[in-house]
Amino acid sequence: MKKVAVVMGSDSDLKAVMPAIKELKALSIPFEAHIMSAHRTADAASSFAKNARENGFGVIIAAAGKAAHLAGAMAANTTLPVIGIPLKSSALDGMDALLSTVQMPSGLPVATVAIDGAKNAALLAAQILAVYESDLATMLYLKREEMKEEVLKKDKALAEKIEEKLKD
Amino acid sequence: MKKVAVVMGSDSDLKAVMPAIKELKALSIPFEAHIMSAHRTADAASSFAKNARENGFGVIIAAAGKAAHLAGAMAANTTLPVIGIPLKSSALDGMDALLSTVQMPSGLPVATVAIDGAKNAALLAAQILAVYESDLATMLYLKREEMKEEVLKKDKALAEKIEEKLKD
Amino acid sequence: MKKVAVVMGSDSDLKAVMPAIKELKALSIPFEAHIMSAHRTADAASSFAKNARENGFGVIIAAAGKAAHLAGAMAANTTLPVIGIPLKSSALDGMDALLSTVQMPSGLPVATVAIDGAKNAALLAAQILAVYESDLATMLYLKREEMKEEVLKKDKALAEKIEEKLKD
Amino acid sequence: MKKVAVVMGSDSDLKAVMPAIKELKALSIPFEAHIMSAHRTADAASSFAKNARENGFGVIIAAAGKAAHLAGAMAANTTLPVIGIPLKSSALDGMDALLSTVQMPSGLPVATVAIDGAKNAALLAAQILAVYESDLATMLYLKREEMKEEVLKKDKALAEKIEEKLKD
Amino acid sequence: MKKVAVVMGSDSDLKAVMPAIKELKALSIPFEAHIMSAHRTADAASSFAKNARENGFGVIIAAAGKAAHLAGAMAANTTLPVIGIPLKSSALDGMDALLSTVQMPSGLPVATVAIDGAKNAALLAAQILAVYESDLATMLYLKREEMKEEVLKKDKALAEKIEEKLKD
Amino acid sequence: MKKVAVVMGSDSDLKAVMPAIKELKALSIPFEAHIMSAHRTADAASSFAKNARENGFGVIIAAAGKAAHLAGAMAANTTLPVIGIPLKSSALDGMDALLSTVQMPSGLPVATVAIDGAKNAALLAAQILAVYESDLATMLYLKREEMKEEVLKKDKALAEKIEEKLKD
Amino acid sequence: MKKVAVVMGSDSDLKAVMPAIKELKALSIPFEAHIMSAHRTADAASSFAKNARENGFGVIIAAAGKAAHLAGAMAANTTLPVIGIPLKSSALDGMDALLSTVQMPSGLPVATVAIDGAKNAALLAAQILAVYESDLATMLYLKREEMKEEVLKKDKALAEKIEEKLKD
Amino acid sequence: MKKVAVVMGSDSDLKAVMPAIKELKALSIPFEAHIMSAHRTADAASSFAKNARENGFGVIIAAAGKAAHLAGAMAANTTLPVIGIPLKSSALDGMDALLSTVQMPSGLPVATVAIDGAKNAALLAAQILAVYESDLATMLYLKREEMKEEVLKKDKALAEKIEEKLKD
Repeated sequence: MKKVAVVMGSDSDLKAVMPAIKELKALSIPFEAHIMSAHRTADAASSFAKNARENGFGVIIAAAGKAAHLAGAMAANTTLPVIGIPLKSSALDGMDALLSTVQMPSGLPVATVAIDGAKNAALLAAQILAVYESDLATMLYLKREEMKEEVLKKDKALAEKIEEKLKD
Repeated sequence: MKKVAVVMGSDSDLKAVMPAIKELKALSIPFEAHIMSAHRTADAASSFAKNARENGFGVIIAAAGKAAHLAGAMAANTTLPVIGIPLKSSALDGMDALLSTVQMPSGLPVATVAIDGAKNAALLAAQILAVYESDLATMLYLKREEMKEEVLKKDKALAEKIEEKLKD
Repeated sequence: MKKVAVVMGSDSDLKAVMPAIKELKALSIPFEAHIMSAHRTADAASSFAKNARENGFGVIIAAAGKAAHLAGAMAANTTLPVIGIPLKSSALDGMDALLSTVQMPSGLPVATVAIDGAKNAALLAAQILAVYESDLATMLYLKREEMKEEVLKKDKALAEKIEEKLKD
Repeated sequence: MKKVAVVMGSDSDLKAVMPAIKELKALSIPFEAHIMSAHRTADAASSFAKNARENGFGVIIAAAGKAAHLAGAMAANTTLPVIGIPLKSSALDGMDALLSTVQMPSGLPVATVAIDGAKNAALLAAQILAVYESDLATMLYLKREEMKEEVLKKDKALAEKIEEKLKD
Repeated sequence: MKKVAVVMGSDSDLKAVMPAIKELKALSIPFEAHIMSAHRTADAASSFAKNARENGFGVIIAAAGKAAHLAGAMAANTTLPVIGIPLKSSALDGMDALLSTVQMPSGLPVATVAIDGAKNAALLAAQILAVYESDLATMLYLKREEMKEEVLKKDKALAEKIEEKLKD
Repeated sequence: MKKVAVVMGSDSDLKAVMPAIKELKALSIPFEAHIMSAHRTADAASSFAKNARENGFGVIIAAAGKAAHLAGAMAANTTLPVIGIPLKSSALDGMDALLSTVQMPSGLPVATVAIDGAKNAALLAAQILAVYESDLATMLYLKREEMKEEVLKKDKALAEKIEEKLKD
Repeated sequence: MKKVAVVMGSDSDLKAVMPAIKELKALSIPFEAHIMSAHRTADAASSFAKNARENGFGVIIAAAGKAAHLAGAMAANTTLPVIGIPLKSSALDGMDALLSTVQMPSGLPVATVAIDGAKNAALLAAQILAVYESDLATMLYLKREEMKEEVLKKDKALAEKIEEKLKD
Repeated sequence: MKKVAVVMGSDSDLKAVMPAIKELKALSIPFEAHIMSAHRTADAASSFAKNARENGFGVIIAAAGKAAHLAGAMAANTTLPVIGIPLKSSALDGMDALLSTVQMPSGLPVATVAIDGAKNAALLAAQILAVYESDLATMLYLKREEMKEEVLKKDKALAEKIEEKLKD
């Protein structure tokens, strides 16, 4: 299977990115994680993206906050699908990162997920690979079924939970 | 090659969606377009998404405005990658559609592109298929090169254009 | 009297939804609460809404955060009035949920209350039932009178409270 | 059947409110329309709301722009359900009216619909009355079916429409 | 001197309003504080405003959060100047209260100060009274001079403060 | 009576400011209008504000767009009440001017009215003067009564107007 | 004197950028203008920035809309001061470009001017060069004086202009 | 070398401004820090700016929150480049300060950095001085190289860090 690259602008982003890594691991999707900055290590970032396809990557996930250019910088240098995770930072509640990631100019899409949506970024990467990887598709389908079961189970437990809360 | 589905909430959205259709056509990617509403024809929408993979689709593009739920409704019923195009409508400049499309809950990603970013949605769909379709990957790469050439050509013509403007 | 359904997207929403449940209880309005997701259990949600009227429900209250589609998904499948509670989540202060809930397309209204406005959702449900249930109308009227009394009482106590604060 | 009141802050709002009036007319729901201002004719507004229930009204629809207080002023003086339509005015794209209408304090809900969502306000009023008016409920159900048919018909005509557009 | 009325929607607003009360006290301006709700005690609020001028008030300060209608409700019922303090509440960081307070329709101004700007509301009230009360004008002028001195003094102490911080 | 100063940042603001001037004229309030910039003619602006009280002014109205500092610059140099009119300019729909005008630091209030709320600024100025000018107070009261009559008259004409619209 | 580079993402940006070019011309500051895209011609952009200092540039002005990364991409590849002009595009009124330009990560500043603030970008570039170019400093000072004169002249003409408007 | 002035509106801003001071110190750039308010000490601020160039300053950094006028007030009184740091305060997450700082009128630019971007303000000041100070330019270049090295080093350590996190 093609690998997924998970790149982030700084190691302080790792905490927010971990759910993506855990999800890829859980789905047995091969991945590589890197710290790479659209600004601080622009050349390294650009050259990573340029060689990503021939280095066996199928999808790139890029996470960044504030004027989040990392996903865009990846997208500018590869025709692989690039998934952007806008990270919430100290001001503006992630709106800056969301707009910097999603409002890409014509010709260079970034597949943007929710603010701090690392887990969904990994699932989207998996869904992309699963277009042609039927085993992974099956695994994703089963995961969905489990998720459904879990909701139904919680629904059954709800009445009791409410009773308890009403006693408080 | 897998087909791309292009679904939109209403036929008044067609104008905003056409750039996606034109791009898919230009890239010779097989597609089907449908009007389908997360609310008005919820069952049809849900059943379309459920059968999309076995009906030969590889990616679903969904365009909607306001409380844009169509992409999310697709995503809820398939594990294919779903690309959301938030459409600008009469109020709030598309911010409502953007947030309704991108802020999906954990477990169900929607690959969101820019407000009214129909062309990019098609390109993203192409990039997704091109992960395993090397001819398409090559075509996308050449397209990028052309795009680059065009910018460089425009750059060369700029000085003259400015001279004219300065005369006005 | 018709029942009120209170549905929420996840059991982590229960805390925010409890004021609705307490209010319905206080008003002796029969209700049922469910965990139900527009995305994770789309079919269950749709079928619940479709059968709600014949199952004796008069109003559906739906609470969800982020790209809050639950109220809209209910509204798509019933002609009962659906009340939406946009929940504040980790980013954007509930603005995403508010817009996803209130900006419904023509033909499918959601009666939206304030962000985290669970208590008001229950009161609105009661007001809806009270259009034709005169006892409930009386109870709501008395509640308002009490509310008024309480404010007037607090107003009387204010001068003293201020004196204390001025001493600090 | 109970009547629906449609109140608006100024006659310049009439254009935006007409879809509500047309919808009520189409559904044969008795209504009365008034110009009434939370600020300019505060007493008239308050007394209208206070007497609305005994004057045979079942629902009040209130439309206003900017610091839109009309719906709230109605809600403060009746326990009937009050539906608020936030109107877009010259600045801020209706966001001011939306927040002024929806963010009501605890105890006094306003059932808010989309910015300029007059038609949905009328449908919501109809849904409220239809909780206990089964003929109206049937009419709403049939309307939904028609709406669905219309979408499906448009879907069938789409391919041809796209062909035409591709020729342009 | 005319009195200043300080009204607030709920006693939970008292903490945010105290700086206004302290400032009025410090300036020896006679005032009365009341809890009064545009919604919960609409009649009391309206009648307070109507009689304010003849009861010896010169300015009304009104503080409220969320869909903050209290200042507007005061303004609708008096031609005295009304100062609105938008209060920050649990969601939207006070933007809802700001827009609900400031965006008043033509004919009924509310003199709006900053979010949680209670102290400035009192100063503005004082400035209004001081148009014709020259002693108060002098007091305000002296206060400004003091404020200026304080800044200049802090400026002188800054270098040392920075030295300390640089050692940390 | 004290005079009202109406200052604006540029003569391109005159159109937006005219409603204030017309209103002052209609109320026979003496006024002076000036173009004065917090940035371009900072000294003139500061000196105008410093001398305003002794030059017979009672209130200063300041209108500006974008990073609207004019009202604040006035407020910094006088203890007269300063009314700020945030003007809508080419971008951001006046939100920039609103926040720049209203969010004044502690100690220096600006009485902010709605975006492009020039007429209300003049009325507020009149209300301020009318605290101690009982003739003006009477005139403002009568104006309110007229405004009320006008709304009531429009209300009476509404039914007919709707009939016409329904025929279209 | 060092040259100023004016780069823009597309030739459709030229209209918005012209005021910068005209201003530089008026100030006799040598400049070069280029079309250069952070995404479409990432390598050309990066190499331009890397060589800018040794090619005789003193300041780079970069204009872009939407997820405006051009200024950031310049800043990443040079230690020359980079001035960013956020351009307003079809949606979100330029807020996306503003946040993408100004919210740069620590270590890589972009000197951001107002949305569509091309003229100010040129003036800022001039001010930067004028730190060490005293002739230019003098020219900027004189320009300010002229600007001041113009405002004072307009102020003198205002009364007459208002008289005319009052006659309309 | 020319000096850098660092001015802030209040000593409570010092904490947010310290990173600028530390950076200037680290770069051995001479600086002076002052508390100076566009409102409280308007004259002192204006006179500081007017004399800044002849007092040996090359750049002014101004930090302020809310309706942040300090940078604009500096810019109005000097032709030196003025860098604005919008500070986040208790409400609106710094958006008020950002817009008040960046949206300057034509003719008077403020070089705005990110919300709370004090460190970048210092670096921008350094870059401005370094246009003509080649030693400083070299130092900035080396700093960039270090920054790059640090990222690359962190990248190398990432895999291990992830392993640890996966064990939690």
